[in-house]
Amino acid sequence: MNEMEEHLIEFLTQFVSLTEQEIVQIKQLELIREFQKNTVILHEQEQAKQCYFVLKGCIRSYYLVDGEEKTTAFFTEGHPIIPVSYSKKQPSQYFLACVEDCIVTAGTEQTTELIRKEIPVMETLISRFNEQLLADSQLKYEDLLILSPQQRYVKLLEQRPDLYNRIPQYMIASYLGIKPESLSRIRKRLSRQ
Amino acid sequence: MNEMEEHLIEFLTQFVSLTEQEIVQIKQLELIREFQKNTVILHEQEQAKQCYFVLKGCIRSYYLVDGEEKTTAFFTEGHPIIPVSYSKKQPSQYFLACVEDCIVTAGTEQTTELIRKEIPVMETLISRFNEQLLADSQLKYEDLLILSPQQRYVKLLEQRPDLYNRIPQYMIASYLGIKPESLSRIRKRLSRQ
Repeated sequence: MNEMEEHLIEFLTQFVSLTEQEIVQIKQLELIREFQKNTVILHEQEQAKQCYFVLKGCIRSYYLVDGEEKTTAFFTEGHPIIPVSYSKKQPSQYFLACVEDCIVTAGTEQTTELIRKEIPVMETLISRFNEQLLADSQLKYEDLLILSPQQRYVKLLEQRPDLYNRIPQYMIASYLGIKPESLSRIRKRLSRQ
Repeated sequence: MNEMEEHLIEFLTQFVSLTEQEIVQIKQLELIREFQKNTVILHEQEQAKQCYFVLKGCIRSYYLVDGEEKTTAFFTEGHPIIPVSYSKKQPSQYFLACVEDCIVTAGTEQTTELIRKEIPVMETLISRFNEQLLADSQLKYEDLLILSPQQRYVKLLEQRPDLYNRIPQYMIASYLGIKPESLSRIRKRLSRQ
């Protein structure tokens, strides 16, 4: 666990400088949690009480629509997860589940409030993070609107090549909004180019 | 202009309490700008230097793909606009244009930095705003992935009925990712129900 705490501090100090006392404060919050592969950390209709930051592993968000999974995101190392249900204080419309064994930080509204008050520099960091997340989310929307599934697949491979070996193909197909057979065809087509 | 400054302060004090001095500080920043209908405030390939907050009017974001407009958002009263290009410091992939005569606040990185430093309570407000914007952006993505154009149209009418009379139908069709003829068919179908 200590190693993961160090990881978290290392990550944060890439963006802001923290005093020794602030580092101790963060460690005292005991934010780190471990989940086994396939654990569902948020169910549909459940109200999210926590937001996360992935230190190790991969968490997937997906909807169940007429019995079919619609994957909307893969969160890996360095990605924050702020469930819509957490921000909007309403039941979740989607699931969050671990694709791999995961280590994350888990923050409640209370811990986030505490961090904001006690460590003001973290407020600035959270705010900047949120701004970047918002830009990423806009880009994702616009890709979905404008690009073909094949173009989105190529972009995903370019931007996050690690996903290719970490995520089952059927989940990637679901993320692209196509059938696994269509993804196989796209892959064959691309390998011939 | 004074009236719009009052509008801005009124809006802000819904969420945080501001001291007299803070209100004076905000007014001194002279953030308010007016744009005439059809003004393009951000061009494709231009790097956005400002983010906005709409006090009056409507601004639309759209891509040009093979000569065809793809509308991605309508920003009206109370909506912040944080262009991807502004957050990512890269050329914009899309346009921002005024659908109506508009009055907005326009903030540069410098003014935002100043506000963050001088009026700490605004940092918290910006952070919370960004969190809500992020949740909205996620929901929008998921609607696009899951709902049919007709379902998205019904949802848009429910959530933002004012748009119906403010926005030309061809822009709404472009937002829904369908041809104007298809939108006419959807409207006829819905009026028969």
